[in-house]
Amino acid sequence: MAFLKIIHQDKNSHARTGVIHTDHGDIETPIFMPVGTQATVKTLDSSDLQNLNAQIILGNTYHLHLRPGENLIAKFGGLHKFMNWDKPILTDSGGFQVFSLGLQKDKKTSNKNNEKLVKITDDGVEFRSYIDGSKHFFTPEEAIKIQHKIGADIIMAFDECTPDNAPEKYVREAMERTHAWAKRCVKYHKQFNSLTIKQFLFGIVQGAQHKTLRQESAKFISSLDFDGIAIGGESVGYNMQATKHILDWVYPYIPEDKPHYAMGLGLNPTDLFDVVERGIDMFDCVAPTRQARHGLLYVYDKKNKHKLNITKSIYKQDKNPLDKKCTCSTCLNYTRAYIHHLFNTQEITGMRLATIHNIHFFLDLTKQMREAIQEDRFLQMKKKWI
Amino acid sequence: MAFLKIIHQDKNSHARTGVIHTDHGDIETPIFMPVGTQATVKTLDSSDLQNLNAQIILGNTYHLHLRPGENLIAKFGGLHKFMNWDKPILTDSGGFQVFSLGLQKDKKTSNKNNEKLVKITDDGVEFRSYIDGSKHFFTPEEAIKIQHKIGADIIMAFDECTPDNAPEKYVREAMERTHAWAKRCVKYHKQFNSLTIKQFLFGIVQGAQHKTLRQESAKFISSLDFDGIAIGGESVGYNMQATKHILDWVYPYIPEDKPHYAMGLGLNPTDLFDVVERGIDMFDCVAPTRQARHGLLYVYDKKNKHKLNITKSIYKQDKNPLDKKCTCSTCLNYTRAYIHHLFNTQEITGMRLATIHNIHFFLDLTKQMREAIQEDRFLQMKKKWI
Repeated sequence: MAFLKIIHQDKNSHARTGVIHTDHGDIETPIFMPVGTQATVKTLDSSDLQNLNAQIILGNTYHLHLRPGENLIAKFGGLHKFMNWDKPILTDSGGFQVFSLGLQKDKKTSNKNNEKLVKITDDGVEFRSYIDGSKHFFTPEEAIKIQHKIGADIIMAFDECTPDNAPEKYVREAMERTHAWAKRCVKYHKQFNSLTIKQFLFGIVQGAQHKTLRQESAKFISSLDFDGIAIGGESVGYNMQATKHILDWVYPYIPEDKPHYAMGLGLNPTDLFDVVERGIDMFDCVAPTRQARHGLLYVYDKKNKHKLNITKSIYKQDKNPLDKKCTCSTCLNYTRAYIHHLFNTQEITGMRLATIHNIHFFLDLTKQMREAIQEDRFLQMKKKWI
Repeated sequence: MAFLKIIHQDKNSHARTGVIHTDHGDIETPIFMPVGTQATVKTLDSSDLQNLNAQIILGNTYHLHLRPGENLIAKFGGLHKFMNWDKPILTDSGGFQVFSLGLQKDKKTSNKNNEKLVKITDDGVEFRSYIDGSKHFFTPEEAIKIQHKIGADIIMAFDECTPDNAPEKYVREAMERTHAWAKRCVKYHKQFNSLTIKQFLFGIVQGAQHKTLRQESAKFISSLDFDGIAIGGESVGYNMQATKHILDWVYPYIPEDKPHYAMGLGLNPTDLFDVVERGIDMFDCVAPTRQARHGLLYVYDKKNKHKLNITKSIYKQDKNPLDKKCTCSTCLNYTRAYIHHLFNTQEITGMRLATIHNIHFFLDLTKQMREAIQEDRFLQMKKKWI
């Protein structure tokens, strides 16, 4: 059985529906993947995710390596068992956090002793834990080894994620390092993966906002024996104009028969249309859950980029559900006034009910997209939304 | 139909089983009542409480008056509808919080302008909101009026809760005020209650740790037309030696055919035995939920007062559930190691799973007590536990 089975190719765009097969079950694509950074999607437990019909969730290798550690997770039979979630999981390689959290820390400490907190060599990256300052060293091999121990269904190659404002020369250097690391990841994975379940390895296309680099990277990553192709980089998801360009540039060079994954995408509901239209099958983002915890909730109504801020006093007496069309358990059971009250009184329950709503919203939106693609009316659906 | 139907009187103690009938359903006694201060039991929503088979929950009039306000709750058809909980609710009168939060605030501001934050007169109590410092005035009539608007099944008379270290002369004064207020509460409730559901009004016995005052108070409160009798006071629940004395003193004077309610009781699982043995039918306490949020979890094992602190590193690799005998959803689905990890990483999910466990534990314990009383083996059960 092929890893990805394409079900339908939209007649009017690159959008497509498919099914990804894993040993923990099938994933219908395009799909949104909720982020469970530290072995939990914040505020939820695994039965909540089951009730939400989440098909796949993410774990963050960087965070799981620091706490509770991959060796402990392995002792428990892998992340699925540790967190009691038996559907598919994807882990990132830790690359993104190594750089983003390392640089944040650098700023915070104002780097007094002139010691760089993230040291990059061709061999790998030395970084300090954002929790206790302890030193860690990730090589491509180490990142894969950790992910073997965590035991997700889909794992990612270790890459260097360059800031958008880095000079082109540096971006090229980093990209070439990412390519060399990609080869080492594939090699290590083939040689040492010994889990009873099949782990699929994805490569990551880098190159920041440079067309030639992005295309070179897409060609190179696609030439390796990866099971899927991810598009990474600081701007992906956070700068949608740039994201659209990048996806257009790389599309001709990434194989049709492998899953396409846009990393860290979903700041706004409408962003999903722009990437699905460009042939993306999978995406994840902390925004829906993080925004939920701050009271920013998604609605089908077009106003304000499909968002409402439930902390505003206009909702104090509002007897409506968060969204009238929504069928999540929060909308079926509670009013805007009640959720407003929970946020107003800093009750944790509010954050959880909001998280359930936002995740449901994204999962439902991708389900609607799959149905639209199936009937070749994806662009019509997009038009209605944007 | 009588409000309370006694099912069985234990042959060897004052313990008894019964059923309390309300328009929102029956309550089997003795029963623990989880505290839902601000229209939510912290970290849980109403479906969690349904899954836990909670039979009755508490709301705090003081907090609900400040936020979202009783008028808003009334507009939504009462607290049941506002929070989507259709089983019985009890509200306290606000008395305890007016004094305890008022005095806390007094200490914090070190009372520079020499202005008392809680002003008590025979008419009522003026206090300042702990949130914004705004002035409020509760009379007995006002406290009942607010509770009418909130619409709980059981409501409480407004009382003055005196500190344990107050001089006897003051305790007597305060008790006499509480008695005068009790009469006013009964009168106002009879005259102005116009809800479609029947609201039952309980009186509160005060008198601190003075035997004669407690007995005088028990006699007086029992002589009024209350539906149930509560035992209040600073020491009840927090000083179990004193609590036992107080309950023994008042027992002969409170009517058998009305529910007996020990307010704010349940700091330790074993405390429940001491009060049930003394004929108490209902109790509530924030401790099980508050302790849960700090990782203090109840276990059937006798060690450490039936508690374990899941934040301790000895649980890091523990594959057992929180308690092997427990059938709550947390214990059926997660290990100690996982809950430890959630607390260690400050994940909100941990607080919720812990809260579910502690509430289940108390509800299950009272269920076991009811079964033991039914079979006249309550004291044997107590012996096993203590």
